Amino acid sequence: MFTVTVRDHTMVAHSFRGEAFGPAQRLHGATFVVDASFRGLTLDTDGVLLDIGRAAAALRAVLADLDHRNLDDDPSFAATNTTVEVVAQTVADRLASRVEAGEVGEHARALDSVVVTLHESHVAWASYERAL
Amino acid sequence: MFTVTVRDHTMVAHSFRGEAFGPAQRLHGATFVVDASFRGLTLDTDGVLLDIGRAAAALRAVLADLDHRNLDDDPSFAATNTTVEVVAQTVADRLASRVEAGEVGEHARALDSVVVTLHESHVAWASYERAL
Amino acid sequence: MFTVTVRDHTMVAHSFRGEAFGPAQRLHGATFVVDASFRGLTLDTDGVLLDIGRAAAALRAVLADLDHRNLDDDPSFAATNTTVEVVAQTVADRLASRVEAGEVGEHARALDSVVVTLHESHVAWASYERAL
Amino acid sequence: MFTVTVRDHTMVAHSFRGEAFGPAQRLHGATFVVDASFRGLTLDTDGVLLDIGRAAAALRAVLADLDHRNLDDDPSFAATNTTVEVVAQTVADRLASRVEAGEVGEHARALDSVVVTLHESHVAWASYERAL
Amino acid sequence: MFTVTVRDHTMVAHSFRGEAFGPAQRLHGATFVVDASFRGLTLDTDGVLLDIGRAAAALRAVLADLDHRNLDDDPSFAATNTTVEVVAQTVADRLASRVEAGEVGEHARALDSVVVTLHESHVAWASYERAL
Amino acid sequence: MFTVTVRDHTMVAHSFRGEAFGPAQRLHGATFVVDASFRGLTLDTDGVLLDIGRAAAALRAVLADLDHRNLDDDPSFAATNTTVEVVAQTVADRLASRVEAGEVGEHARALDSVVVTLHESHVAWASYERAL
Repeated sequence: MFTVTVRDHTMVAHSFRGEAFGPAQRLHGATFVVDASFRGLTLDTDGVLLDIGRAAAALRAVLADLDHRNLDDDPSFAATNTTVEVVAQTVADRLASRVEAGEVGEHARALDSVVVTLHESHVAWASYERAL
Repeated sequence: MFTVTVRDHTMVAHSFRGEAFGPAQRLHGATFVVDASFRGLTLDTDGVLLDIGRAAAALRAVLADLDHRNLDDDPSFAATNTTVEVVAQTVADRLASRVEAGEVGEHARALDSVVVTLHESHVAWASYERAL
Repeated sequence: MFTVTVRDHTMVAHSFRGEAFGPAQRLHGATFVVDASFRGLTLDTDGVLLDIGRAAAALRAVLADLDHRNLDDDPSFAATNTTVEVVAQTVADRLASRVEAGEVGEHARALDSVVVTLHESHVAWASYERAL
Repeated sequence: MFTVTVRDHTMVAHSFRGEAFGPAQRLHGATFVVDASFRGLTLDTDGVLLDIGRAAAALRAVLADLDHRNLDDDPSFAATNTTVEVVAQTVADRLASRVEAGEVGEHARALDSVVVTLHESHVAWASYERAL
Repeated sequence: MFTVTVRDHTMVAHSFRGEAFGPAQRLHGATFVVDASFRGLTLDTDGVLLDIGRAAAALRAVLADLDHRNLDDDPSFAATNTTVEVVAQTVADRLASRVEAGEVGEHARALDSVVVTLHESHVAWASYERAL
Repeated sequence: MFTVTVRDHTMVAHSFRGEAFGPAQRLHGATFVVDASFRGLTLDTDGVLLDIGRAAAALRAVLADLDHRNLDDDPSFAATNTTVEVVAQTVADRLASRVEAGEVGEHARALDSVVVTLHESHVAWASYERAL
């Protein structure tokens, strides 16, 4: 099994609903350093799992919709808290759509899965893994 | 599949029994930078896999029993060398007990597995993964 | 010259005034991973520049006033943008006050300087250094 | 499941064939920081998955055949581009041969799998995982 | 004193002349992860030492002249080995020219100094610091 | 000014004398990840500040005297606590002796200074800088 990972980041504001969050119920923010890992069993005739430049561009495009925003105002997240788990899942789902649309190349459409990890600090991070 | 990871550390002395260990048979020590990863399929109604603050507190509690100690004197390890593999397994088992006792919240009791990674330096680390 | 550094972090929301900031004029946020370095020429009779636990506690106390807040609402920053440079300077100044008040121990009052570095992502960080 | 990882690096020149590579078709180079992870279910009587010193030596031996070379001149890679995926697979295969030959110790011959990760920069890396 | 740092990278081939280099006399390569630090005493009216986006763009422009090249073919380096020290100095000098030409903004022309650090692996790096 | 840094590590046991140390008065241990930085104004005719391989060998030789030992038993430290500050100073002093003895090459004898940083965890480190 091959895995190729690219790293980028986004900086957002948000707040959480629910007493369990304590002071994080207040409006605050986060830098998410985001690792997107693509997994698959075979390389193409160039010897790559997918074009790493196109993978990075797809991740950039997905993060551009979050960059420098207050996620509390984003209708996509109206029904949920924008926890690091939820944002990881959203980024993974949006990357999956781009892969399936062929945006990362034809060979990438045969990939097995994607894992998205969001680092919210040097001591905490979360991932979401899904099939492609 | 979601994964949430928290990082902490502990500093211990120990020595190893067995010729294979060479100079590590002498009393020496280590800083273990410890990553505890919790894995599960579903988020709770707050949108979290588990309360990251409670996860960090559970890891801290497990490491508090090791902090600033000579593991050679710890009866839990009387029958074994305290290799990085063995300590990773011990930390994982003790975290699992705390999760199963509900200490990290009710939803966390439905988690699938835990992975504990101990970094003993910038060039070597070891993990133990087990079901919950 | 000795230097002792402790690391912690804080998560804040903010926005910037000024066309140069482009999309960062919108409300967004950041995780600041904060390194506080204390510098001095001599160790005390225990062989330490300062008590590393007290240094970490002082940094924690300074960051507690920023944690999970929208810096746009903090009167301390009413007259300025809360750029990473400005926040680094503010953290350094507040740490300096605590050191000078003896909160980090008597010996620490003889320290030469403090440097505070805020990492806003894996590709950008800023520092402020000042005398004590 | 236990995993033990050791890290080392190698510095090589290479070029790629194929228009998809753009400027990387020119002769250029890379530092590959290489993590070799060994996975297995049981520890030996010393409490180790494998001798970490012998694991590091095996990785060093595999990388020594790549160090300070132009991979375009290496007959092993005559039929393929030396992408990070291909080099990860080659390193994993060569490590597997050494493990199977008993070079990392008798117990290591019962290992389940090996994962080799090559970091080509702070923002991109690739892995290859295979059974042992 | 304020310092602002941005990180980027470049991947090059090269070889060294001189017996002291041993196997590094052969054609090989490196990923240089490059940190460019700008230092100065005052912030502008926006509260920044310099525009971090423009600083990153200037670093990218300097590295673009090195990216995916064999430095042995670059006339700028005809008279010297392209050691990590020499490349750090070259990057610093070229950044300094861009700063002095006003490319990073008017306020940046009053900066004190620039430090460029090239990481050639996880265990070795080099810097060059110069006045502006 | 040029700086060249090499990284290595050592794993030791020790205990501290003095109530201020709290639980660290017990026998415990640490992994010290050690960065040795050499500083100087000029490169030699090969274009290097010093031979990076010889610098790494000198650091290894200095750390070999600490590796896998209980520092409480080392006569060099009989009169002092082996705090991270003290060990950083000791490593720097011993490196300086080796540089001055010509062990790192003739050109290195003209170096200005050395800085040794010991990382005791992901959240704490200390340095000692001295002239050569």
